[in-house]
Amino acid sequence: MSIHYPSGQKPLAVHERPQSRSVALRSSYAQRGMSLEAEINASNQYYLANHIAVIHKKPTPVQLVKVDYPKRSAAVIREAYFKQPSTTDYNGIYKGWYIDFDAKETRNKASFPLKNFHEHQIRHMRECVDQGGICFALIRFVELDQMYVFPATSLFEYWQRQLHGGRKSIPLTAIIQDGYPVQYGLNPRLHYLTAVDQLIAAKKH
Amino acid sequence: MSIHYPSGQKPLAVHERPQSRSVALRSSYAQRGMSLEAEINASNQYYLANHIAVIHKKPTPVQLVKVDYPKRSAAVIREAYFKQPSTTDYNGIYKGWYIDFDAKETRNKASFPLKNFHEHQIRHMRECVDQGGICFALIRFVELDQMYVFPATSLFEYWQRQLHGGRKSIPLTAIIQDGYPVQYGLNPRLHYLTAVDQLIAAKKH
Repeated sequence: MSIHYPSGQKPLAVHERPQSRSVALRSSYAQRGMSLEAEINASNQYYLANHIAVIHKKPTPVQLVKVDYPKRSAAVIREAYFKQPSTTDYNGIYKGWYIDFDAKETRNKASFPLKNFHEHQIRHMRECVDQGGICFALIRFVELDQMYVFPATSLFEYWQRQLHGGRKSIPLTAIIQDGYPVQYGLNPRLHYLTAVDQLIAAKKH
Repeated sequence: MSIHYPSGQKPLAVHERPQSRSVALRSSYAQRGMSLEAEINASNQYYLANHIAVIHKKPTPVQLVKVDYPKRSAAVIREAYFKQPSTTDYNGIYKGWYIDFDAKETRNKASFPLKNFHEHQIRHMRECVDQGGICFALIRFVELDQMYVFPATSLFEYWQRQLHGGRKSIPLTAIIQDGYPVQYGLNPRLHYLTAVDQLIAAKKH
């Protein structure tokens, strides 16, 4: 995943290695020319501007080692390293609900590999669910041009099974069954909160 | 405010200029040897470990300019700058409530200067309040050894008055009247969620 930069700034892919960037993307999602993160950020900007929700991506944490303070100009970070976040990437508020999620994508066509999740993300989502939050994974199947809001509670089940020798991926059929499809549009680009509405409605019943 | 580092890492004060660090701190808060941010982080760790709340400080956003990818070792950030955040510093979930706040301190004894807040922080808190979130400023009077949870809705009033020629600070008397005092303890160091309980109770009435 690349970091989102404000317009006018030169983007710099820091988490993507050249080999992954050089893969020719064939899906229509990819053809639209935006990364998953850029599309989520654009959607969140739309939701914010229209007072629908306040959801932001958390900045990538960095470990500072050396910072210069030139006279009369801004501090310059001269040595720093990326740190592993202790939470998910996105959180905020929507209709009074605390929203917390991570976005993931795969080129697989039949299942979503659990190795895309980290223990600390699962742990964080568990804590948030226990506090009454709406937690999920926004999962994109790049080759299938499909995206789903997959509830954290279902994710926990597959995560637990994997820890006890179960399969290392979530079948697409399970994601379709437990999840909510996300429609693609112009504004917002991803209508993911419409899928979240369904998740909230299901939670209430 | 300094950035929180995991134990074992060398702390590096990046937002504090030498002149501000060399000021001899006399209050008992200061004598306890932790920065306000460190105390909030320690309290949040306590709340998390005891399944009371999930509240984190957002990482300071940085604008990456140059990143090296040495072979077989971690990426090194070689040039980057601090960016102004578009939100407040802390958010999370507590008993189902979305929590959002910023922490500020002053050496003043009779009022809190509004210049400590930025327009984008006020705007962000307004959006969150409109969505039903619990938003506030955690305000410390260093010299008085007092701390308050001051509701964002009260803050908005003083902010608006200032924009229309009103006073540029919030009197301590107003903070005492509209706010909720935060008790200092060993674990958590700041019982700020107890004050938030009162804010939530007042909101319900």
